[in-house]
Amino acid sequence: MTPTQLFEQIQRKHSFLCVGLDADMAKTPEHLRSAANPIFEFNRAIIDATHHVAVAYKPNTAFYEAHGTLGWEALEQTVGYIKQHHPEIMVIADAKRGDIGNTAKMYARAFFERMDCDAITLSPYMGHDSVEPYLEYPNRWAILLGITSNLGYADFQTIENKETGLRLFEEVLQRSAQWGGADRLMYVVGATRPDYLKAVRRVAPNHFLLVPGVGAQGGRLDDVARHGMNRQCGLLVNSSRSIIYADTGRRFAEAARCAAVELQGQMQQQLQQAGLI
Amino acid sequence: MTPTQLFEQIQRKHSFLCVGLDADMAKTPEHLRSAANPIFEFNRAIIDATHHVAVAYKPNTAFYEAHGTLGWEALEQTVGYIKQHHPEIMVIADAKRGDIGNTAKMYARAFFERMDCDAITLSPYMGHDSVEPYLEYPNRWAILLGITSNLGYADFQTIENKETGLRLFEEVLQRSAQWGGADRLMYVVGATRPDYLKAVRRVAPNHFLLVPGVGAQGGRLDDVARHGMNRQCGLLVNSSRSIIYADTGRRFAEAARCAAVELQGQMQQQLQQAGLI
Repeated sequence: MTPTQLFEQIQRKHSFLCVGLDADMAKTPEHLRSAANPIFEFNRAIIDATHHVAVAYKPNTAFYEAHGTLGWEALEQTVGYIKQHHPEIMVIADAKRGDIGNTAKMYARAFFERMDCDAITLSPYMGHDSVEPYLEYPNRWAILLGITSNLGYADFQTIENKETGLRLFEEVLQRSAQWGGADRLMYVVGATRPDYLKAVRRVAPNHFLLVPGVGAQGGRLDDVARHGMNRQCGLLVNSSRSIIYADTGRRFAEAARCAAVELQGQMQQQLQQAGLI
Repeated sequence: MTPTQLFEQIQRKHSFLCVGLDADMAKTPEHLRSAANPIFEFNRAIIDATHHVAVAYKPNTAFYEAHGTLGWEALEQTVGYIKQHHPEIMVIADAKRGDIGNTAKMYARAFFERMDCDAITLSPYMGHDSVEPYLEYPNRWAILLGITSNLGYADFQTIENKETGLRLFEEVLQRSAQWGGADRLMYVVGATRPDYLKAVRRVAPNHFLLVPGVGAQGGRLDDVARHGMNRQCGLLVNSSRSIIYADTGRRFAEAARCAAVELQGQMQQQLQQAGLI
């Protein structure tokens, strides 16, 4: 998927919503638990209910690995289902991998070849040769952690480099610009840190940003849009729990649809204010 | 597993060898390819051939995920096989995960509950709450990336903090000391960077270090022992490719045994010189 295709989808759907598919079996409605693969059935219902307002889906691998082979099968089925029925929607493997070159090649094979994911999230800690193997795939994306939405972000991400005066997350943005362009790289910037969005945009004005933390984690959409939006929107705002667990009973899919449409309505307003639709 | 149990095993086997189980199907001997699960069959043969000199096994998840559900099944079977037949041997999931708290709990469940791994490797980029869920499991370990063995290590890991004068990897060592002790945390320090071992030992004299990079990546065992060994040995030196692919034909397991025994002999010498056996 190219940045232009992504922006066209955003304009068509009046939305920059990414739905996080973090199915927790403990919260899955009871009537699905007897299905052959309850996690996949849950995801399928969520996808059927939200695809008209979602421009991306983001399964987090942890929630699948917690269920072993059944979980991994559900992950593969979920990616396959999205790509079969809604090939225009971006699929982001939220895997936060990061390993040496020959190992990174294996992860790239897992997520870009065996599965047909468009993007994978990566930790930048190990540097360029842990990211480059993913950049060799045309029209696929590596999404590097920049400033994350959790409490521990301040432990290392804001450390200031004695030599350059840049903070670690700014070093990640600046150095990785030499590894690939805005058509291959995105960055994770937590919605809970809107002030940092400004700093990110100073170094990376053109990149798409994946923004988690709206909803359950407390981030606000208008703050994110004000500081982060660019001329191609440049934002994918993720919401997981507040959509997929809007209701945990029989009506979970209908409730997810409503929560997603509600968020899409707010996004439409932001896109209109910015003159992008 | 406690540090004392690990050291006792090291003394008993005269070895601090960790064997990396990174089975690459393309390099798996032909006669195994018709097995129900060639990756597991390969691993089983390697384990049978090396368990008398290995104190730890380290499957890297990438090599399993590259084969989808079959790969994940092989990973679970491999961990189960080690724990059933050699419960004293440490199993390290080389997963390099790192995610927010509620997600980290899912990974901990995957590797410490569904599978019976003793340890998991983690990227420290996201800070304390991405590590703490793993530390709640008694006698299991979180192994944080410190200085890695790949070329890209210098992109971020050696950035010097303007405020403290410490380099990023030293910040990781120092801050994480507040999250857990030497009975719960280890650090990855690449054998290709022996000079950094000295710096690591200044901040973390008592921790066990997981040292990859001996063999195929060019690190030297005597350098590692000279700079990194402490009074409980404090080292797990990993070798993957130079053991498991010592021969890629029918005699692969016998060749792996010889390569492992050869390395164990060198380790015995280092342990003797240090007066630890």
